[in-house]
Amino acid sequence: MARSSTSAELPLQINKNSTASLPSQIAEQIRALIVGQTLAGGDSLPATRTLAARLGVSRGSVVAAYEQLAGEGYVSTGKGGTTVSVAFDSSAPPRPASPPLPEPSPSPRVRPIPKTMPTRQFIDLRPGIPDTSQLATSAWRSAWRHTAALPGRTHPAAGSPELQYQLAEHLRLMRSVVREPASIMVTAGARDAFRLVLSALRREIHDRPLRIAVENPGYPSLHRIPAAFDHEIMPIPVDDHGLNPAYLPAENRPDLVLVAPSHQYPLGASMPVARRLELLNWAAENDAYIVEDDYDSELRYVGDPLPALAALARDAGESAAALDRVITLGSFAKTISPGLGLGFMIAPDALTGPLWELREDLGSPVSAMVQDAMAEFMRDGGVRRHIGRMRRLYKGRRNLLLDILSTGDMPAWVQVLPMDGGLHVVLEFSGDYATEADERAVLEILEESGVKAAALGDYWSHTGTSEKERAFGIVVGFGAASDRALQRGLLLLISALKRRS
Amino acid sequence: MARSSTSAELPLQINKNSTASLPSQIAEQIRALIVGQTLAGGDSLPATRTLAARLGVSRGSVVAAYEQLAGEGYVSTGKGGTTVSVAFDSSAPPRPASPPLPEPSPSPRVRPIPKTMPTRQFIDLRPGIPDTSQLATSAWRSAWRHTAALPGRTHPAAGSPELQYQLAEHLRLMRSVVREPASIMVTAGARDAFRLVLSALRREIHDRPLRIAVENPGYPSLHRIPAAFDHEIMPIPVDDHGLNPAYLPAENRPDLVLVAPSHQYPLGASMPVARRLELLNWAAENDAYIVEDDYDSELRYVGDPLPALAALARDAGESAAALDRVITLGSFAKTISPGLGLGFMIAPDALTGPLWELREDLGSPVSAMVQDAMAEFMRDGGVRRHIGRMRRLYKGRRNLLLDILSTGDMPAWVQVLPMDGGLHVVLEFSGDYATEADERAVLEILEESGVKAAALGDYWSHTGTSEKERAFGIVVGFGAASDRALQRGLLLLISALKRRS
Repeated sequence: MARSSTSAELPLQINKNSTASLPSQIAEQIRALIVGQTLAGGDSLPATRTLAARLGVSRGSVVAAYEQLAGEGYVSTGKGGTTVSVAFDSSAPPRPASPPLPEPSPSPRVRPIPKTMPTRQFIDLRPGIPDTSQLATSAWRSAWRHTAALPGRTHPAAGSPELQYQLAEHLRLMRSVVREPASIMVTAGARDAFRLVLSALRREIHDRPLRIAVENPGYPSLHRIPAAFDHEIMPIPVDDHGLNPAYLPAENRPDLVLVAPSHQYPLGASMPVARRLELLNWAAENDAYIVEDDYDSELRYVGDPLPALAALARDAGESAAALDRVITLGSFAKTISPGLGLGFMIAPDALTGPLWELREDLGSPVSAMVQDAMAEFMRDGGVRRHIGRMRRLYKGRRNLLLDILSTGDMPAWVQVLPMDGGLHVVLEFSGDYATEADERAVLEILEESGVKAAALGDYWSHTGTSEKERAFGIVVGFGAASDRALQRGLLLLISALKRRS
Repeated sequence: MARSSTSAELPLQINKNSTASLPSQIAEQIRALIVGQTLAGGDSLPATRTLAARLGVSRGSVVAAYEQLAGEGYVSTGKGGTTVSVAFDSSAPPRPASPPLPEPSPSPRVRPIPKTMPTRQFIDLRPGIPDTSQLATSAWRSAWRHTAALPGRTHPAAGSPELQYQLAEHLRLMRSVVREPASIMVTAGARDAFRLVLSALRREIHDRPLRIAVENPGYPSLHRIPAAFDHEIMPIPVDDHGLNPAYLPAENRPDLVLVAPSHQYPLGASMPVARRLELLNWAAENDAYIVEDDYDSELRYVGDPLPALAALARDAGESAAALDRVITLGSFAKTISPGLGLGFMIAPDALTGPLWELREDLGSPVSAMVQDAMAEFMRDGGVRRHIGRMRRLYKGRRNLLLDILSTGDMPAWVQVLPMDGGLHVVLEFSGDYATEADERAVLEILEESGVKAAALGDYWSHTGTSEKERAFGIVVGFGAASDRALQRGLLLLISALKRRS
């Protein structure tokens, strides 16, 4: 284990009365030391056993904190122990020599992924559909009884003050985001919010369509909104660390960058902190906005959820100006139910005025009935309990899936990509099999045997991305199917893959 | 009583098994004969007693049918009995010589009418707020229990097929509109639908802002939507028969006319059939769309609800092309609850494709929970029963209001405008008192005594309408206050008016 006299004396303190868990407390303080440059790139952290003894906590708590920091990209673990990532060195972050940027396309239309209800006719392994069978608890039912008894309520366009308060508490506890309730807008979901953001920006820049940088591959349903209004979509390649800001075009720079920093969709990368800061600085320098799609970060099975870009506010200190460029879209579509039609938006102060005014003029589409039921369910602790329960359930289902897929029965040309959270895994095809034809063929065999899944190739922008730049494979959702159906579906999937071999 | 050999042999038939009431059946068939030119302007209808005897129904049913037709403008009643309106003569409808058209203004911003919850601190006589105290019946609660038990449902972007079916039935029975369920889009209300319509038209005409003709005075919250997108708003004066198509500008003709033909807001005029047909023909000739805001036509206390423009489809026969120009916006904000966040849109076939596709791309903001609860409530007959109950309750409250306002205690400069439906009445000031200053002064005195109402002058487009063109007075809502509070509020109103005298 590496030792460092500096880090052995790190000013870390444990507060036994805090509601935050011990690993969270440790991780948060080390994070602040790194961002505040008390710890620099390459510095060693204390050995887990040493730090645990000094703080009077179990070694497991320190291990969990380090794992969390490693997942976020603050530290890396190797033979020499845990060290602060070199990205935090004072030198500039490395930039790739030749960005493989595809031509921005005027209106790419990604094939829509069907999102309809699973029916009993087939095994549904399509991604993005959560399991709602555990939701109708007594607390849930009681929340809806409560709302049914108050049918005459109406709320301001920004949302019910009660719900705004509950959302602020939720964001503080679950996402480390500290905001005033009044600065959180209640929306009908991420798409409602994104459309409002586009309308507000369009009024600022009204002489041309907006330029929207999106992740390629990315989340199709959000990309369809700017496309529907003929805004210019710029697909930006993602790598193992998510979207790379170095690939953002310098000429005709985008007005807005849409990213899922916590859990890139569908490849699952999470953006390390160094890259997040790089993106924030890019936005501040270029007077652009970042829309953070925080769609399922609470469903993370390794460590705590990664902090939202919006949560970097506290840490960032001097780069607070950069935070003024971040709009965070949240939704309960994955954690509660896609049919609920409820989400929220956190906007920087400078945009709050125009966005709130526009919402007032256009009217909020969010039912007061839904707002009241959700406020009641949140107040009752129902949301936290449900997310905790679902995280355990999905974690088990994901482990089942990884067990089945690693039986050794899988063809060598299929690779299961690492995935720390969410409701799906990606099976990528390699070598000669990395073609759209193979992808289609496997999905066809699969569908004939009664299983539905999604094509990885569909998540790339169809125009402006060559077949070589795309990856092909199968995206397998484990949210909607029961354990039994999942098991059967996966065996049929392996059999389909073997038939194509 | 006038006699006519033609009309004595009118081909009218009663179907005792129909779900339609006897007066509705009679009115509907006579309406068809007038539109189909079997009956021409000036023709006499049979005496009520004669027709009742021939059809084997009570004379009251025929009287009710004639009253309904008179309310719609198909017939008029005078000394010579009931005759078909001269407007249905083959000669062209009369046009005014000099339309008093105000200059269209680029972006008129009508002062928003607050729509927040009434609190116990004051007597709420603001217009547009329904009484929801009767809503939470066992059927209502059961509908929400039903939806709480199915939290995982999702629906297509156009809406839940079950709800579309229930809406089609509702429209057929309550509004004489016969449409396929699939041609009815479920919306979050009139504003959600109107915004979608504007987005779709904006894509067709993308080289300039849209030109939107609106009623002046009119409904502020819908006018704010085109204004928010910098479309050009053209305020068109209304008279006793609603919006006059003759005042629509010939140069730079509007792309879209927004009207409330059944119950003009706030003045209460209903557009007679002749004028409705004139407007439809204007739209067909000018390749423009009509957006029909059918916001509260079910709350009519004299006769049946007037048929929607969309219902003229069947009658219109050869002018079916004109009907292809009508988009109808419906909502349950006034009949059920403003907080429900549910409405619907009926679009002409030609627009269904673009509108439905845009909805798919943008995503529907309407919660599946609300759709499922409402479908259940409608299936159970809850909506029809509730509307029937509220119509009786509001009719009683309106009569109470008219009784109190006609005590003779009212200053001579205050005139109560006739109002056949809705949730408010208009008290117009005349003579020297027809000023904004008087309006403000009365509302101030009223507010000091704990009563809130609205200013009539605020419903006019504030730019481009001179004080001379506007009317001033008080708009009194009778939806939100209890009978007791209404009574007290009205006495305080009369006292405030007398103090200003």
